[in-house]
Amino acid sequence: EQKPKQTTLHPTHRQVEQHPSTHTGSAHRSWTHSRFRPPAPRDGVEASFIYPSRPPLHSRRAHSFPRHCLLLRRDISMAAHMSAGGKKIVGVFYQAGEYADKNPDFVGCVEGALGIRDWLESNGHHYIVTDDKEGLNSELEKHIEDMHVLITTPFHPAYVTAERIKKAKNLELVLTAGIGSDHIDLLAAAAAGLTVAEVTGSNTVSVAEDQLMRILILLRNFLPGYQQVVKGEWNVAGIAHRAYDLEGKTVGTVGAGRIGRLLLQRLKPFNCNMLYHDRIRINPELEKEIGAKFEEDLDVMLPKCDVIVINTPLTEKTRGMFNKEKIAKMKKGVIIVNNARGAIMDTQAVADACSNGYIAGYGGDVWFPQPAPKDHPWRYMPNHAMTPHTSGTTIDAQLRYASGVKDMLDRYFKGEDFPVENYIVKEGELASQYK
Amino acid sequence: EQKPKQTTLHPTHRQVEQHPSTHTGSAHRSWTHSRFRPPAPRDGVEASFIYPSRPPLHSRRAHSFPRHCLLLRRDISMAAHMSAGGKKIVGVFYQAGEYADKNPDFVGCVEGALGIRDWLESNGHHYIVTDDKEGLNSELEKHIEDMHVLITTPFHPAYVTAERIKKAKNLELVLTAGIGSDHIDLLAAAAAGLTVAEVTGSNTVSVAEDQLMRILILLRNFLPGYQQVVKGEWNVAGIAHRAYDLEGKTVGTVGAGRIGRLLLQRLKPFNCNMLYHDRIRINPELEKEIGAKFEEDLDVMLPKCDVIVINTPLTEKTRGMFNKEKIAKMKKGVIIVNNARGAIMDTQAVADACSNGYIAGYGGDVWFPQPAPKDHPWRYMPNHAMTPHTSGTTIDAQLRYASGVKDMLDRYFKGEDFPVENYIVKEGELASQYK
Repeated sequence: EQKPKQTTLHPTHRQVEQHPSTHTGSAHRSWTHSRFRPPAPRDGVEASFIYPSRPPLHSRRAHSFPRHCLLLRRDISMAAHMSAGGKKIVGVFYQAGEYADKNPDFVGCVEGALGIRDWLESNGHHYIVTDDKEGLNSELEKHIEDMHVLITTPFHPAYVTAERIKKAKNLELVLTAGIGSDHIDLLAAAAAGLTVAEVTGSNTVSVAEDQLMRILILLRNFLPGYQQVVKGEWNVAGIAHRAYDLEGKTVGTVGAGRIGRLLLQRLKPFNCNMLYHDRIRINPELEKEIGAKFEEDLDVMLPKCDVIVINTPLTEKTRGMFNKEKIAKMKKGVIIVNNARGAIMDTQAVADACSNGYIAGYGGDVWFPQPAPKDHPWRYMPNHAMTPHTSGTTIDAQLRYASGVKDMLDRYFKGEDFPVENYIVKEGELASQYK
Repeated sequence: EQKPKQTTLHPTHRQVEQHPSTHTGSAHRSWTHSRFRPPAPRDGVEASFIYPSRPPLHSRRAHSFPRHCLLLRRDISMAAHMSAGGKKIVGVFYQAGEYADKNPDFVGCVEGALGIRDWLESNGHHYIVTDDKEGLNSELEKHIEDMHVLITTPFHPAYVTAERIKKAKNLELVLTAGIGSDHIDLLAAAAAGLTVAEVTGSNTVSVAEDQLMRILILLRNFLPGYQQVVKGEWNVAGIAHRAYDLEGKTVGTVGAGRIGRLLLQRLKPFNCNMLYHDRIRINPELEKEIGAKFEEDLDVMLPKCDVIVINTPLTEKTRGMFNKEKIAKMKKGVIIVNNARGAIMDTQAVADACSNGYIAGYGGDVWFPQPAPKDHPWRYMPNHAMTPHTSGTTIDAQLRYASGVKDMLDRYFKGEDFPVENYIVKEGELASQYK
C-alpha cells in the first residue's frame, strides 16, 4: 500500500472549543483568543466552493480520435489520445468550509483539492474542483460536456449516471479518490469506452480499523455511557446489562477481500471465533495464518454469528441483499457492522429489526443516498453507531489516495498503464469482479 | 483467567425502544407490545434497594479469637477463625432498577447480588446487599459494626476509610468484585489485620478491549460523526480534518502489567510503534513477542507518544501524577486513554489541556470521585470519550468476578488460602506492589 508520508497528529490544531466550567485562568484565556482564533476562510471559499484559476483551455487537439475508437481499436494505446495538450480535469469532493485551514494535510476536501493543483496547472492542465454535484444546475453539470477527467470520492459521491456519461463527450477517465466506484454506472461507462479506476489499497487499513472500532462500540455498549456523561447522569447498570467482551464471540465477515482480511488479522488477538464467507476460499496457508474458518454457504454462517461485518462491494448481485428474510436468518441479538455500502442493506428492514431488538446494534458509515437525508431512518433507530461516510477519509487515507490519484494522472498524461489492481473498467472492459 | 461460562449475547433482550419513523406494520407493533413489554420490577427493588432475606444471625462464635490476634499470631491459620457458624456478608454494588430483569447473566448489580445468595444462605450465612454507601445514615454504615465480610466493586466504590475500619469490629475480609482496591484505605486495613483481595484477571481482557476501543474512537474522531447523525447533520470535513489511522502512530503505555500487556498484544496487528514504561522490564523473550520497546524514563517516553494509555494502579506514588507539568512533557495533540483510576490525573489540568487543544482527546471510564458529580469538568471538556465506570463490568466480566468472589468465600469458609495473586493485603501484610 502507498504510504506517501508519515502524518503528524493535529499539526496545526487550532480548534478551541470553550466551555465555561473548564475554563479558569484569564491569562490562558487571552492566549487562547489571540493565538488560536479560527483562521479567516480562504478567498472565495464561502462564495463559490469552486477553484477555477484559469480560463478553460477548450483544446480539442487531444481528441484527434473520436472516443468510440477506443472500443473499436484496442490496439491503439491511450498515449495517442492523451499525450498532447492540456486536459480539463474536474474533481468533486466534500467541502471543508471552516475546517479547511485547520490541518495542512487535509487534502481530501474541495479546498485541499488533493494537493495536486500546482502540479496540474504547471503542466498546462485545467483543474476545476467543486462539491456541487446534484441536478442539472449543479457546477459539475456545467463541466460535464467538455471535461476529460472526472475525479470523484465515495464520501461525497458524484453519481455518474448513463445520462451524464452520454453528455460527457470528451470524458476519457473517471478516477475514484478512495475505493468503491458504485456511484458510477459501470455498464454505461464500459459501453462508452471509458476507463474507471480507483486507488486500491489506499484506505483499506483505515476502514478495517474503523470496523473493529464499531464492533467494540456496539458490543461494549459504549454510546449509552457517553450519553450519560454528557447529560450529567451516572447509571452503570444502564450500560452493563447489555455490555459484552469481544473475546469468545463469533465474528463472521461477509466478504474476505482486502478489507475483510485486514479486519480478521486485527481481530486475531481478541480470541474470537472467526468465520468468513466469500466466493473464493483463501489459500490454505494464508487461511491458517489468518485463523478464520471458511463458510461456503452464507445462510449456514449467519445464524452462528454474534457479530456480522459486511465486506462485499455493491454490485447488482449484492444490492438490497440483507432484507427482512436474510436478517431473520441471523441470531437474535446480532450486531452488524457495515462500512461497505448502505444499499447492500434493505434500509427499512434494518431499522425495523433494530427497533424491535432483533438486531442488538448496527454500526457503519455508509448510507443510501449520501449525504443521508435528515429523515433517513437509520438516524433514529435505537442502538446504532452511525456516522457520515468517513472511515476511508482519515488524514492518512487522504494522503494515500491523493498520492494514488496523482500517480494515475501522471501515467494517463504519459500514456502508461495504471497498476492493474486499480482498474474497474479499462478502456471499456469491466474488471472481472464487476462482470 | 476464569471463564465460568460462555455468554450468549442479549439472551433475554426485552428492551424495545420505539421511534415513530422506524415503526411500520401494525402486526409487528402488536407483537412487540405483547412479547417485549418491559418486565415488572422484582418485589421490593424500587422500595429499598436491599435484599435482606432473613434476620441477622448475630452469631459471634466465629470470633473466639479477637481480630488483633491475626497480627500477633500468624501461625494460627485463618481456619480457626472462620470455620464455625454463619457469617454476615455485606455486598455493595450498583443498583440495576429497571435493567435488573433484562438479562439473567446480569449478576454484578444489587439485584443480581453476584448470583451467590442461595449458596450463601443455604450454608447458613447472612447476606445483605445494597447500593447505599455514602455517609453515616447509609445502609452500609448500619452493618459496618457487625459484618464479617465486605464485598465492594470499583464501579460503585464503597470507600472503606480508616474510620469505617475502626468501627468494623468483626470485619475480617474485604473482597473486591473486580480489580482495583484503591477505594480501601489499605494501610488502615493492614494495621487492623484484615485481608483484602480482588479477583485478579477477572476483567483484564474487558478493560484492554475497552482501551483499544477508546484509542480508536479518539484517533478516528468517531464521536463528532455520531453527533452529526443524531442531529440530522452531514459534514464529512468536520470529522475528517482531525481523523487519523492508528497504523503508524506511536502508542505508549504507562504500566505494562496484566492489562497493559493484553492491550499491547491486541495493538500488535495495527502496526503501531509500541512503547512501554514500567518499574520492571518485561523478560526479553516476552518483550520480543509483544513487540513493544521498554522506556526506562517516563519523561523520555512521553514526548514520543501520539497516544498514551495509563495502566498503573492508584497508589500514593501515582496519585495526581499527571499534572500540568507532566502533561506539558507530552506531544501537543496527544491522545490519552485512562481506564486505570481517575485520581492518577490532575482533574483540572486534564480539562484545561483539552480545552486549549494541547490534549487532542481524552477517554476513559474512571473518575474521582465516583459516581462523578454533575459538575465534574470532564463531562464538559471538548474531545472527550468518557463513560461511567463500566469497562470492567461487561456481562462476561461480571460472571468471571462473581465466580472468583464465590471461590474466595468458599476458601475463606474452609480456612484455605486464596490464589496468591488475588491478595492485596494478606492478614495485615500489604502485597509487594502496594508497599
